[in-house]
Amino acid sequence: MTPTGAAADTLAAPRRLGRRPGPDTTRADLLVAARRLFSEAGYERASVRAIARAAGVDPALVYRFFGSKEGLLRAAIQLPVDPDAIFDAIDKNPGDEGRALVRRVLQLWSAPAVREHITVLLRTAVSHEEARAALRDVLTDQLVRRLESHLAAADAHLRAALVATQLVGLAMTRYVIGIDPVSTATDEQLVEAMGPSVQRYLTGELA
Amino acid sequence: MTPTGAAADTLAAPRRLGRRPGPDTTRADLLVAARRLFSEAGYERASVRAIARAAGVDPALVYRFFGSKEGLLRAAIQLPVDPDAIFDAIDKNPGDEGRALVRRVLQLWSAPAVREHITVLLRTAVSHEEARAALRDVLTDQLVRRLESHLAAADAHLRAALVATQLVGLAMTRYVIGIDPVSTATDEQLVEAMGPSVQRYLTGELA
Repeated sequence: MTPTGAAADTLAAPRRLGRRPGPDTTRADLLVAARRLFSEAGYERASVRAIARAAGVDPALVYRFFGSKEGLLRAAIQLPVDPDAIFDAIDKNPGDEGRALVRRVLQLWSAPAVREHITVLLRTAVSHEEARAALRDVLTDQLVRRLESHLAAADAHLRAALVATQLVGLAMTRYVIGIDPVSTATDEQLVEAMGPSVQRYLTGELA
Repeated sequence: MTPTGAAADTLAAPRRLGRRPGPDTTRADLLVAARRLFSEAGYERASVRAIARAAGVDPALVYRFFGSKEGLLRAAIQLPVDPDAIFDAIDKNPGDEGRALVRRVLQLWSAPAVREHITVLLRTAVSHEEARAALRDVLTDQLVRRLESHLAAADAHLRAALVATQLVGLAMTRYVIGIDPVSTATDEQLVEAMGPSVQRYLTGELA
């Protein structure tokens, strides 16, 4: 049974007002539900009411925690990992940054939860202009600009964006579309095949 | 006004049985409507009835022309250009295949209709498992295998798939997500920046 508005109020009230039997997971529950519904139904079609219902809480809590539907979207599509946990692979492997970065990214993606999250991001992003803009901001702020800060070159911003083209293409062909043998290769095969290309974007001659 | 089932029959009958005032565009109209609705609503949600209605024809014509909804999907996501019109850039530019290929691809994508088509493919593909499988088949058959046939190396299939990772990533970051400066660079800037990386995938040392 799906709770209607009134039933959802009843469900949500203890979380907001009553004693808490354990850690309050409302915010996390809303993010999980939002990711699923944005991905399945697209950003525009997934209503705040439906997301709140899937999380078992009152829709008002969406506005309380996230301000707006767009705020919920922006929270839901945050990257599931700390970018610096990716990019310290660059700092720690001078001269071999490209292979180290591809290896670190593939290691992170090997966790099913991370892979699922990335797939959801890409699916949500292509579903609607507002979602696309949100993913653009996340990728620009959390990947391109953070990567840029680990590079010394004057054209670091261009280099970081070029790396993004390769990593987004790798995610799409390995996990979302599934192009053989990129989808079936081992991590190390891809590290050897793509690492030097990423190295060129990071430190090589570009023009 | 949207025609109901009976009205759609009346609309469609002349196309099927009567005199034709001009070239029959039913098949093309169905493909245009299918691309729009698959992209906007996702493959699963876009019904055969709604697609036929948008094209102004009887739903039975979908089955007549395409056999099934999946047949319609597979016809709708065919690439808008002949792959050999892309890959002869490789044959004609020995030693500079990478830059020539990136240049040719960007030239084709510079047509708004082609760009729109690619965006629709990617949006449709991520919307549903069946659509994803169909795009995988199209990319494998029309891009990877055709590109492979233009390469002499023993590991041509891997090389072609690696090129696909870079081109899919370029399409996503330049046109779908929009990552600056990849989204704002000129074609020639991207040819210089990415051509040598693609060249490595085509003819370079991989391991």
